[in-house]
Amino acid sequence: MPRAVREQQMLDAAVAIFARRGYRAASMDEIAELAGVSKPLVYLYLNSKEDLFTACIRREAEALVAAVRAAVEPRDAPADQQLWSGLRGFFAHTAERPDGWAVLHNQSRSQGEPFLGEFTAMREELVTLVSQLIAAAAREEECVPDLAEREVAGLAQALVGAAESLAAWANGPAGDGPAGAGGAGAEGGAGAEGGAGRAGGAAGDGRPPAKETAALLMNFAWAGLGNLMEGRPWHPRTGSATRRG
Amino acid sequence: MPRAVREQQMLDAAVAIFARRGYRAASMDEIAELAGVSKPLVYLYLNSKEDLFTACIRREAEALVAAVRAAVEPRDAPADQQLWSGLRGFFAHTAERPDGWAVLHNQSRSQGEPFLGEFTAMREELVTLVSQLIAAAAREEECVPDLAEREVAGLAQALVGAAESLAAWANGPAGDGPAGAGGAGAEGGAGAEGGAGRAGGAAGDGRPPAKETAALLMNFAWAGLGNLMEGRPWHPRTGSATRRG
Repeated sequence: MPRAVREQQMLDAAVAIFARRGYRAASMDEIAELAGVSKPLVYLYLNSKEDLFTACIRREAEALVAAVRAAVEPRDAPADQQLWSGLRGFFAHTAERPDGWAVLHNQSRSQGEPFLGEFTAMREELVTLVSQLIAAAAREEECVPDLAEREVAGLAQALVGAAESLAAWANGPAGDGPAGAGGAGAEGGAGAEGGAGRAGGAAGDGRPPAKETAALLMNFAWAGLGNLMEGRPWHPRTGSATRRG
Repeated sequence: MPRAVREQQMLDAAVAIFARRGYRAASMDEIAELAGVSKPLVYLYLNSKEDLFTACIRREAEALVAAVRAAVEPRDAPADQQLWSGLRGFFAHTAERPDGWAVLHNQSRSQGEPFLGEFTAMREELVTLVSQLIAAAAREEECVPDLAEREVAGLAQALVGAAESLAAWANGPAGDGPAGAGGAGAEGGAGAEGGAGRAGGAAGDGRPPAKETAALLMNFAWAGLGNLMEGRPWHPRTGSATRRG
């Protein structure tokens, strides 16, 4: 078996174990066993637990960014279609690879450097991509010449933060997941167990389909962005606003 | 000086040092020095570094939730006013206490349990509060009887995620901040240094005022939610959607 193939098998196993156990509790023995290789071979190929974890984060981050980029419709498509296709790509990918998402969202940020830097770089790429889509949409609409660069950057931050939160919620443990195992997936669990519940109207394990989650965010985001760009911002009503005076 | 007052001074100092250095790199010597007390007194009052960190997270989480609850206009105000006042409370509080926010957003989630649990509990409270506001708004609008519980929960997750992301961006280091110090604030730094830039049109250190950030999110969120509730969801255009077929 070629080294590259075997290495990917090791990374597959490592992603599954890191997602389930968390970085610190994950054992190289278990990873080797799941990959069907000896532990010395894992060390030979990936050097150390730290390097293995870094390789997992990098692979999952690159796969996620590539999936979103591939999903975004071409530049001549309307901006809302581009965003919609990108969101579908994001939620489809994170739903297909919940362990990869858990490693990125829960694990990579929770162990300090150098892992946090890998996550931050990925996040910057997504924020930049979304900023470009929003700026393109603003140019397309033509009617709001004063959507400042800072506003575009802020809107992109809001959208990426909303997408992260929703992916954690949609892919978090549904009662029997890894929530209890060393904190892995615990943030997703917060959504699943929150006061508003997640089971209402849901089938099977209660996780919404990726397309439904994407549509929810698109509705949340775009109808709002659309109004903003067409010069119809939300305004506070006068009256109750002075209550506290 | 009463013990309670002295304890708050220690927590003030600890929050500042944890925000600047990160949990692991923070030294009890530095915290005691900043608090103007001896290190044994810090241990006497707060027991251990872990307990001190837990106390910081819990205090800052309770203060943030209390600030948001206090800011939300009363239940007889229109739902959009309630949300707007809550968002202003959230961004005003996080802007006034950037160290507290850094401890919550960057540090509490990054060291596993029991700290993550403190953060998760706070986040659940905010998600529940936002869910209630969205559900109230849906009842107020009356025209969308089928905004399912799961959709409300998802929208609340999206809004809280967007708010977290924007608070990190708005309060992150502006070039000379703590980004280089052991990962503290690094996620905020990602926004500040991202491709879209943050300086455009900004005065001083480039950080947007809290009210501006709140207005940005309110516009992003409400005009979208409002459309949704009034039965005007966003729909993909046909045509370009089939490009990939």
